[in-house]
Amino acid sequence: MLELLTAGKRRVRKIRIAEGQDPSPQLDEIERLAAQRRIPLETVPRVRFDAEAKTFAPQGVMASAAPVSLVELDQLASPRRGHPFLLVVANVTDPQNLGALLRSAACAGVTGVVLARHRAAHLSPSVVKVAAGAVEHLAFCVVGGIPAALGELQRAGVFTIGLAADANRSLYDLSLGDVGVALVVGGEERGLAPLARRRCDEVVAIPQHGGVASLNVAAAGTVACFQVARWRAEHALAGS
Amino acid sequence: MLELLTAGKRRVRKIRIAEGQDPSPQLDEIERLAAQRRIPLETVPRVRFDAEAKTFAPQGVMASAAPVSLVELDQLASPRRGHPFLLVVANVTDPQNLGALLRSAACAGVTGVVLARHRAAHLSPSVVKVAAGAVEHLAFCVVGGIPAALGELQRAGVFTIGLAADANRSLYDLSLGDVGVALVVGGEERGLAPLARRRCDEVVAIPQHGGVASLNVAAAGTVACFQVARWRAEHALAGS
Repeated sequence: MLELLTAGKRRVRKIRIAEGQDPSPQLDEIERLAAQRRIPLETVPRVRFDAEAKTFAPQGVMASAAPVSLVELDQLASPRRGHPFLLVVANVTDPQNLGALLRSAACAGVTGVVLARHRAAHLSPSVVKVAAGAVEHLAFCVVGGIPAALGELQRAGVFTIGLAADANRSLYDLSLGDVGVALVVGGEERGLAPLARRRCDEVVAIPQHGGVASLNVAAAGTVACFQVARWRAEHALAGS
Repeated sequence: MLELLTAGKRRVRKIRIAEGQDPSPQLDEIERLAAQRRIPLETVPRVRFDAEAKTFAPQGVMASAAPVSLVELDQLASPRRGHPFLLVVANVTDPQNLGALLRSAACAGVTGVVLARHRAAHLSPSVVKVAAGAVEHLAFCVVGGIPAALGELQRAGVFTIGLAADANRSLYDLSLGDVGVALVVGGEERGLAPLARRRCDEVVAIPQHGGVASLNVAAAGTVACFQVARWRAEHALAGS
């Protein structure tokens, strides 16, 4: 909620607060920011609040905000503000996983996210909630087909890296700190679809140890995002 | 479920399957393993199944198994089977986070997990479910106090690394491939408690980028586990 107000990217129409809450610094800050940005603030009985909240909201605050605005793929791929660092989410269907991925992506410095329009989780209230403010810091593009989007990214000079548990090459064999990069993650059950996989410039695995079959898709995406962040940081350091 | 049966570490008393399911290779494999290990298999009406399942079980299979058996801390810290790689979970309270942490830990090759007895999530059915089989591959120790446990690990020669978003040192400045290591993660809200933090041999941060305040505790633990795995793999490779 604070992220929504401080990032200031989405228009917030109204904030509702559940009645009878103990005072807190968070509530004070939300009230201060709402007043500063002239957003109407309404106190509602707890029962009505719970009925109207679209997700479990124990904090007792909810906002009516404009939907996340989408951008075109060529904007995400543009090198105007430095090399793009993109996350392409092909078929993640679980809102918990998508939310976790987006939160990690924002912390790792991802500049834009590509989501599939069909057979995939969208920016639902649950996803936005799990992402804990990250959605406010990311630019999004929704595409009809992942393979076509990967082709477009490549033509724009972005290097596409697919993640697949059964790939022969290790993520750690690459080092791409001075080029636009798109990490491509597949779905929970079947990973990357064959066509998307073939389109990637490289397909790599995160080396695993121990007897468990597979890393969760959000965990794998998190490790990969922070690896790309490290390449970029090391390259920036070497160049400075 | 398959992990529970194949790992074979816990005694399984009974397996119940919801009636009227479509055949699947997973179900066939569960039936085969149950027969092989002489575990009674029972088909129950869906309504009764749903009433008895302790977690949401869309797969329609549940097992009654012995609880996860716990070991003593000195066993976890023993270098008998190579340098131990431990995860100390100090105050994680959300079952989703603990389950995700355990799943990543098992994939990264963690050999043992230390959990706090109080004010922390335990190995509940939800945690075991989110961990997706990982619990069967890990050894667990539950301790009354994290600071005392860290002292005991240090006396056993294990290097303790605390994770804290505000630490000055970077995780990437370390490289500890040839020594026993314990990663120490704090809670969702306040991170590592001061006393536990002071006890750690090193306290490090995962470098973050972008405007989001903090990485989720499971995501941070995942990145750190895979970094330790990398140190160990690189050291093994250099030594071979």
